[in-house]
Amino acid sequence: MNPVHRKAKDYRWEGVAIEPYKEDTRALFKSITRQVLFSDPAQESELRYFEIAPGGFSSLERHRHSHNVLILRGIGHCLIGHEVQAVTAHDLVAVPPMTWHQFRATGDEPLGFLCMVNTRRDKPELPTPHDLVELQQDSRVAAFLRDFR
Amino acid sequence: MNPVHRKAKDYRWEGVAIEPYKEDTRALFKSITRQVLFSDPAQESELRYFEIAPGGFSSLERHRHSHNVLILRGIGHCLIGHEVQAVTAHDLVAVPPMTWHQFRATGDEPLGFLCMVNTRRDKPELPTPHDLVELQQDSRVAAFLRDFR
Repeated sequence: MNPVHRKAKDYRWEGVAIEPYKEDTRALFKSITRQVLFSDPAQESELRYFEIAPGGFSSLERHRHSHNVLILRGIGHCLIGHEVQAVTAHDLVAVPPMTWHQFRATGDEPLGFLCMVNTRRDKPELPTPHDLVELQQDSRVAAFLRDFR
Repeated sequence: MNPVHRKAKDYRWEGVAIEPYKEDTRALFKSITRQVLFSDPAQESELRYFEIAPGGFSSLERHRHSHNVLILRGIGHCLIGHEVQAVTAHDLVAVPPMTWHQFRATGDEPLGFLCMVNTRRDKPELPTPHDLVELQQDSRVAAFLRDFR
């Protein structure tokens, strides 16, 4: 592999492993893969590519670090805090610190997105049953969690 | 503008200014614009989108910070050190520290790419006449600088 230039084909990259999304077995997620595109010791951040199959979703989580997302393919919906947004190719999504968020592939093709994060970051927090009850008191959040199942 | 979700249309983004590429009038470059997609105080890195019109090029430069690039549209060629590579959509290019580099749009449509960099970084260094003579002693570099003019 050329460490400087890695060719892309169909959202797969030379020398980049297709990894499971999470190690954490508590995480509620479905049909999602992860590819780390850049994890450069000379940089303070990493760039990852996530791909969610139609009907799949990332885990509902929050953390102190922020996420900066650029949609690369497909269409989907995301929950950021209490807001639900439809997203499509090249849209930008900024997930602020300690904000519940989830991405869902709601079209007929995979939803693929780039996510930039600080290399040093805290571990995501998953909602407790109590958090879920609180979240669902907002009708927009309740509809997102219910309608896209 | 919604600070969380910014929609994209034709490689332009809501709330993102199209900026000139450089302030530095010494820089030799042509037909290139810059859009800062993410400059999040909670993150250590920024994500920028550069677009080079057909026949245009970025400045030939080097610096201590590294660049992590993902091609978003078009085709082009890049010089990284003494290596010339053809690049196309979604290819990855890692520019190591203190390595001369330049991107050129060599197809019929614009070459657009994302570039992740540390927020705190040193200023680019431009080649002196002496550096240029040295660089052109490598036939690959000389051909790149000559043939794509």
